[in-house]
Amino acid sequence: MSGPHRLQGISASAGYAEGPLFDLDRTAAHYTARATAADEKAALEAAIDAATARLAALIETADGAAADILEFQIAMLGDDALGRPAFAAIHAGQPADRAWRQALDAEIAGYDASDQDYFRARAADIRDIRDQVLQALTEDGDVLAPAGAILYGDDIAPTRFLETDWSRGGGIALKAGSTASHVAMLARSRGVPMVVGLGASAAKLAGTALLDAEHGGIVLSPSRAEIDAFRQSSSSFAARRDLAGTFLARPAMTRTGTAVRVQVNIADPSDVDGIDIATCDGVGLMRTEFLFGRTLPDEETQYRAYRKVLEWAGEKPVTIRTVDAGGDKPVPGFTVEEGNPFLGLRGIRLSLARPQVFRVQIRALLRAAVHGSLKVMFPMIAIVEEYRQAAAMFAEEQATLAARGIAHEMPPLGIMVEVPSVAIVPEAFTEAAFFSIGSNDLTQYVMAAARDNAAVAHLNSVRHPAVLRLVAAVAAFGQRQGIPVSLCGDAGGDPASIPSLLEAGLRDLSVAPAQLAMAKAAIADVSV
Amino acid sequence: MSGPHRLQGISASAGYAEGPLFDLDRTAAHYTARATAADEKAALEAAIDAATARLAALIETADGAAADILEFQIAMLGDDALGRPAFAAIHAGQPADRAWRQALDAEIAGYDASDQDYFRARAADIRDIRDQVLQALTEDGDVLAPAGAILYGDDIAPTRFLETDWSRGGGIALKAGSTASHVAMLARSRGVPMVVGLGASAAKLAGTALLDAEHGGIVLSPSRAEIDAFRQSSSSFAARRDLAGTFLARPAMTRTGTAVRVQVNIADPSDVDGIDIATCDGVGLMRTEFLFGRTLPDEETQYRAYRKVLEWAGEKPVTIRTVDAGGDKPVPGFTVEEGNPFLGLRGIRLSLARPQVFRVQIRALLRAAVHGSLKVMFPMIAIVEEYRQAAAMFAEEQATLAARGIAHEMPPLGIMVEVPSVAIVPEAFTEAAFFSIGSNDLTQYVMAAARDNAAVAHLNSVRHPAVLRLVAAVAAFGQRQGIPVSLCGDAGGDPASIPSLLEAGLRDLSVAPAQLAMAKAAIADVSV
Repeated sequence: MSGPHRLQGISASAGYAEGPLFDLDRTAAHYTARATAADEKAALEAAIDAATARLAALIETADGAAADILEFQIAMLGDDALGRPAFAAIHAGQPADRAWRQALDAEIAGYDASDQDYFRARAADIRDIRDQVLQALTEDGDVLAPAGAILYGDDIAPTRFLETDWSRGGGIALKAGSTASHVAMLARSRGVPMVVGLGASAAKLAGTALLDAEHGGIVLSPSRAEIDAFRQSSSSFAARRDLAGTFLARPAMTRTGTAVRVQVNIADPSDVDGIDIATCDGVGLMRTEFLFGRTLPDEETQYRAYRKVLEWAGEKPVTIRTVDAGGDKPVPGFTVEEGNPFLGLRGIRLSLARPQVFRVQIRALLRAAVHGSLKVMFPMIAIVEEYRQAAAMFAEEQATLAARGIAHEMPPLGIMVEVPSVAIVPEAFTEAAFFSIGSNDLTQYVMAAARDNAAVAHLNSVRHPAVLRLVAAVAAFGQRQGIPVSLCGDAGGDPASIPSLLEAGLRDLSVAPAQLAMAKAAIADVSV
Repeated sequence: MSGPHRLQGISASAGYAEGPLFDLDRTAAHYTARATAADEKAALEAAIDAATARLAALIETADGAAADILEFQIAMLGDDALGRPAFAAIHAGQPADRAWRQALDAEIAGYDASDQDYFRARAADIRDIRDQVLQALTEDGDVLAPAGAILYGDDIAPTRFLETDWSRGGGIALKAGSTASHVAMLARSRGVPMVVGLGASAAKLAGTALLDAEHGGIVLSPSRAEIDAFRQSSSSFAARRDLAGTFLARPAMTRTGTAVRVQVNIADPSDVDGIDIATCDGVGLMRTEFLFGRTLPDEETQYRAYRKVLEWAGEKPVTIRTVDAGGDKPVPGFTVEEGNPFLGLRGIRLSLARPQVFRVQIRALLRAAVHGSLKVMFPMIAIVEEYRQAAAMFAEEQATLAARGIAHEMPPLGIMVEVPSVAIVPEAFTEAAFFSIGSNDLTQYVMAAARDNAAVAHLNSVRHPAVLRLVAAVAAFGQRQGIPVSLCGDAGGDPASIPSLLEAGLRDLSVAPAQLAMAKAAIADVSV
């Protein structure tokens, strides 16, 4: 075959897969139009019903995040607004398949055209809905990928992911895609290797390929020597993963006996359902963006979500981060459109700019604090005045709750260390109760390389000496001043970065639940 | 009057103005349609001709940048593609004014919708062309602003700026606007106070206002006390500016006799026409983005541009920066669209990714080097490998020129220090011949606050201790290692920042030509 031999992208879920390429972008079967507009309308209605039923069946066996996605898709399909342009086109004489495709393509184009990675990532969900219905219209079952295949295409539908049998290996290699997509999230939680951002390839790809989703690459038409080297890397990875399992139940400790706290990062209260609290030292980062989905959440909804996690954690600490919207996490009606959202009105900046929204979250946190060991931290702090303003608002809301006789407690208030200014001058922030290093953002600012941009991925490394120097300086400062310092970025769960982080002086990491075992295993291998 | 009393924006050109507000957005006079489409077509043609003639007349008295803008507008008016939709609409029965307005509004909307500040800033030029022709159509002369007025509106047309008599004071206050617009550039070079990004005001504004374009604000319906305080600030500013003039001809020196080198930043070879080389120590930054306007420049064009500046400078050094496209400086056909362009494929990253374009610039620089004291620097260096790759390409092109017997010379190759990683670990970059601190970018990365975003302007300060600590570290490192360190960001010419920069150890600043006198005066006031 022709075409490039090796393509480089970004790892969305670590792992290895060797197998035949399966083209996700093959064209769909042909639809035969009915005689009248009324028949076409009935056909589309039946197809929407069939697709909904299929999604509902899938939901039976789906858990947490997967169920959420399917529920979202069912809700979209049930929304009359989505199909209205298609039914109008049918009324005007279009066949059902074309009418539906055009209506959904227009919707998809809107998402694709967004500046925001978040919305672009959602385009895959709408595309999935489009294809589910088209498939029901043509009554033509999906061609299933052979077991162990590497699914290759522009992007992949969540239902395609959920219908695939991953028990016999296989992986995902996308020309476009996003590490923030629903499928990427699912792949990480299921351990399915996945690479995104491989770029368009000139040639039609086929044959066997080697997917190295630990380093984000794929090799096509490999040589014997490449296959051998690949299998070695792959078994080493598998061995590390298996071995890791044995570490899960034990407290983390280095080879030389130094204890390391390992907490988990969670993005949604339902995440804790799959985690045994005994396997971790608490929640180092609970994100609260999930609450800010389509509408701004009320105090009661927030309170219940925080309380659920606090009660699950028992006596172990739960560090909740106030809403970190903006950047790559836009919230309609809350965040603003910006030319460089990563350098814009996000995190605590946005909360301070929208005090009425922030105060609702503050009250929910103060009330939830009585149900466990709560800590609260502010994202994107750049100057100490931001911390002071936020802390003052906590004091004010505390007074309000006290006046009303509502049960509450003031949690320790800490800051994320992710804006370089904080890591460079930590002594300005001694008022904070604790520091939590956000290595993803810190790295992208120190290297001036966006973490979601494949074109500068070679610069975005937490292991660059400049990033590690700042991490070490913050750790040493915390040690001297008695301020606890942890790290909650992706680097904390990355076995390749863990040695550097421990050598930089960190003893407290917070990782994705799926990385817990591997992280503990990697810690056991370090001599500090 | 009602409405806000004080509005805060961003300074686009420092200075003070007190005077009546003049509404730039007043609606235009009414156009009376002719009888036939042919008449309408003739009317629009005549109006375009009249507008072109008016611009051509203005060009007679315009200099450098102003002439460039007018030439651009004349070229746009002469482009048939611009008017084609309007003439088609006239043919379909529309009156000339509506046809022209709709055609141009569609064009403007395209620019306004761009992610890129650069293109959004160009919308003002097209809006100007639209209004020039509409004005010619209605044969209604512009209502001239009273002398000393503060021109207030959404945005301002370049021709409006050029037609206004600024000799009796006045200023510009814009609700939207951009510090990167043509008018902002003109205002800085003419010393006209200008503030942008004041935001939409609820009330219709009128009456006398105080424009403080040193700090970026405007006060409406001021009290007596506010007027007094304002006049004091204003005279202090004027006194500083006048005093500064006396410093222009002398070498810069602190109060305690420490010599400071002051060079100039230029953006276009024609900039040097207005500068006496005796008043500065050379060119600390010659940008080369001007060459990458609508098409990629050929080697000969670049060579001539570099040579012109080198010959003007004589024995004094000229530091040319290789093209810093991307970020807020997109180049069609060269740069890429990105979600966060400031953290993307820009500067040296882009040059290394487009080696064929970069090699043309390298050859032009090598050839120009024989005509003066050239130094070359690379923008956006983050890791030393980038410097090595670029230096290797210089060596390769030198060999090519030598083989062809073409006159050339290898200039010293230095780097911009603007990505925090370089400032944090300067010892990794000892191969570079010199360092030039880019304080604008360095500040926006250290503070994680985009320099063109008014919502985070309060965080974007070069005087934040974290930024100054890095500047001081780089200056000290250069001192120890014998690597020359200069600074070429806007802070170098800002009298409020100069004391901090000199205290941080810098002795070499490069400033906008218009800031030369003020910078020298500010230096004379510092005791280091």
